[in-house]
Amino acid sequence: MDGHDDILSRILAGETLAIARLMSRAEGRPGDVADIMADVHKNAGRAHVIGLTGVPGSGKSTLVHAMAKRFRADGRTVGIVAVDPSSPYSGGAILGDRVRMSDLATDEGVFIRSLATRGALGGLARAAMDTVDILDAAGFDVVLIETVGVGQDEVDIAGAAETVLVLSAPGLGDGIQAIKAGVLEIADIHVVSKCDKDESSRTVADLKSMLHLGSTARNHLGWEVPVLRTSAETNLGIDELNDALNNHRIHLVESGERVIRRRQILETRIVKTAEDLLRQRITQGDSMSKAVESALAGDKSPRQAAEELLKTL
Amino acid sequence: MDGHDDILSRILAGETLAIARLMSRAEGRPGDVADIMADVHKNAGRAHVIGLTGVPGSGKSTLVHAMAKRFRADGRTVGIVAVDPSSPYSGGAILGDRVRMSDLATDEGVFIRSLATRGALGGLARAAMDTVDILDAAGFDVVLIETVGVGQDEVDIAGAAETVLVLSAPGLGDGIQAIKAGVLEIADIHVVSKCDKDESSRTVADLKSMLHLGSTARNHLGWEVPVLRTSAETNLGIDELNDALNNHRIHLVESGERVIRRRQILETRIVKTAEDLLRQRITQGDSMSKAVESALAGDKSPRQAAEELLKTL
Repeated sequence: MDGHDDILSRILAGETLAIARLMSRAEGRPGDVADIMADVHKNAGRAHVIGLTGVPGSGKSTLVHAMAKRFRADGRTVGIVAVDPSSPYSGGAILGDRVRMSDLATDEGVFIRSLATRGALGGLARAAMDTVDILDAAGFDVVLIETVGVGQDEVDIAGAAETVLVLSAPGLGDGIQAIKAGVLEIADIHVVSKCDKDESSRTVADLKSMLHLGSTARNHLGWEVPVLRTSAETNLGIDELNDALNNHRIHLVESGERVIRRRQILETRIVKTAEDLLRQRITQGDSMSKAVESALAGDKSPRQAAEELLKTL
Repeated sequence: MDGHDDILSRILAGETLAIARLMSRAEGRPGDVADIMADVHKNAGRAHVIGLTGVPGSGKSTLVHAMAKRFRADGRTVGIVAVDPSSPYSGGAILGDRVRMSDLATDEGVFIRSLATRGALGGLARAAMDTVDILDAAGFDVVLIETVGVGQDEVDIAGAAETVLVLSAPGLGDGIQAIKAGVLEIADIHVVSKCDKDESSRTVADLKSMLHLGSTARNHLGWEVPVLRTSAETNLGIDELNDALNNHRIHLVESGERVIRRRQILETRIVKTAEDLLRQRITQGDSMSKAVESALAGDKSPRQAAEELLKTL
């Protein structure tokens, strides 16, 4: 096995194989790579980390593709973290998408990593954020995290980015409504996809009136949340989106919001990591089975059993 | 304020107002009602708890409506817990749905409760399971939990039911693919909606071949997972679904799987509750801000900060 310093230097040099291997280890057995991940974290913080969320069918992967190509045209390298079971990267999507993406797969300036839903394993948010750190430390200029816009963990993950894009598609079973709760509010930039379609005007108008009503959870310190019309097919709006992303990053620095945002992201991350550690400890010992038995027997409520369990740790 | 015994007896008697009030308290400030929820839990365990999951647009709420009417036709009472931002019950859906549901809203044998995504509050799974307990103790014969089939918490919630239905719709952006990861595997019964449409045959065939390949995570102890064709519009397959639900319940009891399932559900619930308790404790004291500061200063990695935090509890 390679030594700590060797792995770190290969990560910092952006070696593809070392990056992929550390990602697998950090995802599967984070305890084994805690030291190296601490060093990786120290070397992260330079990339522009962008979260993109939208319901299935809103056209996330098509937009990711168009954005990645745009960043590459400026000579910037791109890391993509797909936390979406329907993503073409994670093996869930139809063949057409996969073929369309293949030109990115052969570009050395693009690194794509898929995280599947982890089910009982848990720790999706923790794993996603570790993966972002590795790409960031490895020198990628932009790191894009793509998640579905439903699911508490998924929204938390996208929300833990410097710049948060929320993607809405026109006519998608009332898409805006579908992701209303808690998702639209976290957007720094709204993107409406498929704007070659007629219904898109209503979607844009709905988003604008929502913003006008002031229903955003974030204090943006003077940033006006834009609503951008795109069509990845025709490349409509991709330049404008690129400008908005750059402007938002400048805004974060100049307004002082970047420090606030970094603190919030770290807080989310520490909470998610603590939960993850807790889950591992709980499922290791025999305290869990004792807790379940006493709840099954009716001696304790689930809450009392959970409290007991926390005491034994 | 009412006394403990009084509240409990009103819950057990199925008093609507007492039920709604306890739900709000359990959702918002669970610590305040821990004692009464322990008694509620002791009195739960009689209802048939059914989890229903499917991606947005698969027709969950239409199916819930048809199922509720079918249960009512047998004289059984129904509690519905909607954990889905796009549900017509949670205020997210289009007017048409809402109107269609209104005949249930006036039926005293039906109780509908919506839980919104809780964002930073967390504890969605814990809150959902407490809500199920209240409906169960209040004497509802069937309790239906509806969640979106994406999102780790959401899948966990639906999976923590005695009988798990997974709903797929034909032609929904390759719906089967979209929810593949971790969701299809938990189904006790597969339901394909919108079977008045031609594409439904392919969806049914895909599901059957998946089942034939043996890709289910659960050991069903002899239960053959059926794939049912429904059309809520024409009431196609609703009787068959009702039969399958009843048969599954009988199977659970006769095979001994019910005990195993109850143990799994309690385990999930205790883990989720412990995480919830942990999150509350973390965010209360000043340990959290200390942990964030040391991570911000670069003295500690997020994982080290999380470990420190757990030690202070």
